[in-house]
Parts: sequence; C-alpha cells; structure tokens
Amino acid sequence: MTESPPSAAAIDPPSGALLECVPNVSEGRDAVALAALERRLAAVPGLRLLDLAPDRDHHRSVVTLAGTAETLRDGVLALFAWATEHVDLRHHRGVHPRVGAVDVVPFVPLAGATMADAVAAAEGTAAAIAEAFDLPVYLYEEAARRPERRLLADIRRGQFEGFPAKLAQPDWAPDFGPRRVHPTLGVTVVGARFFLLAVNARLATADVTAARAVARAVREATGGLPGVRALGLFLESRGCAQVSMNLVDFRRTSLVELLARVEAEARGQGTEVVATELVGLAPAAALLEPLRALLRSDALGPRQIVEWRLLEEESRAR
Amino acid sequence: MTESPPSAAAIDPPSGALLECVPNVSEGRDAVALAALERRLAAVPGLRLLDLAPDRDHHRSVVTLAGTAETLRDGVLALFAWATEHVDLRHHRGVHPRVGAVDVVPFVPLAGATMADAVAAAEGTAAAIAEAFDLPVYLYEEAARRPERRLLADIRRGQFEGFPAKLAQPDWAPDFGPRRVHPTLGVTVVGARFFLLAVNARLATADVTAARAVARAVREATGGLPGVRALGLFLESRGCAQVSMNLVDFRRTSLVELLARVEAEARGQGTEVVATELVGLAPAAALLEPLRALLRSDALGPRQIVEWRLLEEESRAR
Repeated sequence: MTESPPSAAAIDPPSGALLECVPNVSEGRDAVALAALERRLAAVPGLRLLDLAPDRDHHRSVVTLAGTAETLRDGVLALFAWATEHVDLRHHRGVHPRVGAVDVVPFVPLAGATMADAVAAAEGTAAAIAEAFDLPVYLYEEAARRPERRLLADIRRGQFEGFPAKLAQPDWAPDFGPRRVHPTLGVTVVGARFFLLAVNARLATADVTAARAVARAVREATGGLPGVRALGLFLESRGCAQVSMNLVDFRRTSLVELLARVEAEARGQGTEVVATELVGLAPAAALLEPLRALLRSDALGPRQIVEWRLLEEESRAR
Repeated sequence: MTESPPSAAAIDPPSGALLECVPNVSEGRDAVALAALERRLAAVPGLRLLDLAPDRDHHRSVVTLAGTAETLRDGVLALFAWATEHVDLRHHRGVHPRVGAVDVVPFVPLAGATMADAVAAAEGTAAAIAEAFDLPVYLYEEAARRPERRLLADIRRGQFEGFPAKLAQPDWAPDFGPRRVHPTLGVTVVGARFFLLAVNARLATADVTAARAVARAVREATGGLPGVRALGLFLESRGCAQVSMNLVDFRRTSLVELLARVEAEARGQGTEVVATELVGLAPAAALLEPLRALLRSDALGPRQIVEWRLLEEESRAR
C-alpha cells in the first residue's frame, strides 16, 4: 500500500502494462440505459470493453474493461458521468447488496502488470472520481489502507440506505472525497485484487433459506472453502433461489471443487443445483481447469484451442 | 465429391475462406529435423503454423496449419520437400501405423469455409503432390471417390511395408500418381473432414493387451461409441500401455463421455487411466465441454475467457 495518493496524471506504469478493471454498476434492467453506457465507453480512446453482463434480478451489471491505468481512469470517469444521468439509488431495488450507483471498481493486473501497478491505478482513479463527482470513495482489498476496509462486505454492510449513519462514525471517514453520501450515486469502493470468478448456482427450490444455508456452508468466513464468498438470494424473475458466489482465488479452491461442494450442500438441503452461470469473464487457467481435471494433466493450455491460435496469428500478422 | 480434379491454380474458394490442414508426418524424435520443418513452413507466405506436436513413441508428429486453400497447398508441398530430405520410411520404426513419410493430410473447414471447399482443397493438393513428388495419393473421408477408401484404416491396412502388394491389386489403383510406392516417401492419403480430437490415455500397466481390450470396447467399429477410433499401443519411452484415440465428431460423443468410458473399461481390465493428453489442437466448443457439463449449461462460451477477448480486441485494433 502506498502512503500518499499519486497525482492522477502520473498513474501509468512505465511499461504501459495492461490492467483489467471490472466495475459493477447498479443497473441491470434498462437496455436503453446500458446501450448508452456502451456508447459512452466506446468513445474513450484506447479503452477496451471486453464484456457487459446485466442481471435483472440483481439489478446490477458487471462491466469488464481493459487498458492502461490512465485509459481505465478515463473509462471509469465516463462510467460515472453515465451513472449521474441513468442511475438513482433512491429508486434502486435489487436483491444484490450495494452502496453505490457504481458500486465497486476493482483493478486486476494482466500480463506485464503487477499488483502494485493495480493498486496505483486504483488510488489514482479513486482520487479522480472523488474530485470530479464529489462522493465518498473507499479503498479495499490490496489497495486498502486499513485492515477493517479490506473486505467489500465490511464496507458495504448497511448498504446505501444505512451509509449516512455509518459515515457519521469517526472510523468510517472515506479515503477520498467528502464526508457526505451522494444523493443519487451513494459511495464507491475502489481497489485492486487477483482475478475473481463470479458464479451463480440456481437451485431447484423457491426457498431462499436453503440457498442461504448452502451459502453459509461454502463461505470461507463461516467455515467453508478458502477464498469463497457467498450469498443466498431469491430471483423474482425465475421464482427460485440462487447461491451467488465469488471465488477470489481459483488457485486455492478450484471451480470444480467449489461446484462439487455446492451440489453436495444443496442435496443436504433437500434440493439440487439446476444450472450454474459464470458472470463476466475469467482467465483461461480457471476455465480449462475442469478439462485438466478430467485429463488428470495440467499440460493442456489455451494455445491448444484452434480459434485461440488463429486469433494469436491474426493479431501478430497485422 | 467433384468428378474431375480442379486445376491446382484454381482451388481457392471465392471468399478466400480459411481452412485448417493437419498433416501427420513420420518423424517424432529428431528435434533438428523438426526445427528444419518449422523454418521451411515459416517461409511459405501467408501460411500459419498453429502447432507442431511430436511423439517419440509413435515416431510421428501432428502439424497444424491454417490458411487459404492455395497457401495450404504450397505449405504441403514445402512439407513434402522437407520429407524427401529428412524422412526415409525404410528406416522408420514407430508404434503408430503409417503408409507415408507424410502419412495423412486432412483439410478441415474453418469459419467462412464449407466442406465442399475443404474437399476441393484436398483434391487440388493431392494432384499437386502426386505430380511434384511422383508418389501414389489416395483421397479419403469426405473427399473419397469410393466408399472403400473413406476410412484411413482401410487404406493404411498393411502399412508401408505391405503396400507394394496392395498396389498390385486392381481395386487399389491410386486416385493420383503412379502405381508404384515411392521408395522413401511411401504413399499419401489426403482428404477433408470435420474437426478431430486426438486423445491418448496412458494406462497404469505395461500390458498392451489391456490397452487393446479397452480400445476394442470404445471403438465404434467394434461396438463402442459413435465416432470413436482407437488403438492399443505400448510406449517404449514410458514402459506403459496407451489407448490412442481419434474422436471424429465430438458433437456425437463428447470428450467427457469418451473419457468416462475409457476409465470404466480400464478398471474392467484391472488397471486405470494415469493421465490423458490431447494431441495438437481442438475447437473451443470441444474443450469447454467439460466446464459446460459441470455448469449444466451451454451458455458459457470462449468469449468469456479474458485472454481471448483481449486477443480479439488486439486483432481488431490493429
């Protein structure tokens, strides 16, 4: 963790290394609004929009961006400009907990970048957001300046509605920005972390207590698997329960291991997993893991995928 | 199947569509010779060498190329030129059956190409090879002109050593080239087919009869799974048995299904599968199948792989 925030102009790592940035925004239903967001982001030079994954029940979208630290900062500022026009937390109701219109903004090092680069990018972006939009910003995970702010769940407890009371406490002075919740944007959490897999398992029951029990069993904080965060939610649109999970380090607990455990716990609750979705993107190593487990070999890599090698050759040839 | 071979100059599909070509060559041990092959292929303009996978026990390498029909024809001719200098079948001993220094040359349609394009490319290349190198060439699979030449196993039966006797029979006049086995290159089989997965499962036994029994059980032709070809082989370098398989249509029998069956049959033979390797490349749909089976959802696609999307953006941006 650095002691003082770098100036917003100086946040590019010398190598121009590539970072991923995965803002989660509190809009998952309005296709017109999301189309406007895509256009806004497409207009930022050098910014790569890799994916946009909305969820109607969560009323939340996962935006996956890539670029240099400077480009991503500009992209996040464009995202905030869009949010001031399209998101009003006072009217936001969705099953997923949130404190902000732009709820969380994690930076992830890609090839050529280090976690220190990602932390520097987070700090520069946090400072820029706070200044431009006049809202409280908290640094979390690898960018956290205090241990009690490391976990998103701890910062987000009480949600948007409970934040004014939280802000009044001396312990909760923001890392950047005013000591006043923004009326429509709320607050924002910015940080740096390793790749995270967002996995939602739908259960064959409408009973959300079953989903919560499964979540409790797999969640690291309540005695479950390493690196697993989990919530039990009810999906209005489908009338069924869902275990919504984050796998924060797939090298410690694999996707295969996690899903096997979820299935076992679901059966223990008298139900079963209907299907599981991966939200947003994940690294090849994580997504090839089930195949490697089947082959009992780590030898297989993404460069054995035909279309991958074609893309590689294509990007070299030009 | 077309009735007359197109002239070699006219084998490009009008769209310039991309094809894959996967020659298997009878050299899997000599790194210097294989390095010379790579340099030879790199010198062919527009040819993309996607992969080169040698196998010491099989004494065979799988070369994965991509390009237009014309480019691939030039690549295969360069491959043959290399083979005349580096491969002499009279001295070739490996556990994998072969009839040629360049044993088989399948063309596979990629995006924008049809099977008819692949067949046309096969015919044009077959004609060019026969003319330039004066050896018998047989068309197989989708390019076959007679039903008894559809399957590679039927053309290859008797191997290189038994081919002079085979060629003497009226039924085995080649599709192109002289009625005389080339002294060092043998004969070559050229054709067109769908993607094929080459999968080798190592067993925890040195007993090759166990591997042959497993092969017999999973092989379609002997009552096994649809689209599966299999051989039981002994690997000198490892001192163990191997079930060497081709999955000719992973949409009919999936990799998951095939490997589950191999494991069950291995146990039935009192042994087990130690590990499995995929040789060469395979399409994303086939390699993501174990993950999709785990998720119980076909929704996940390669565009959810971070590095894939980055490659896509990279190849577009330039």
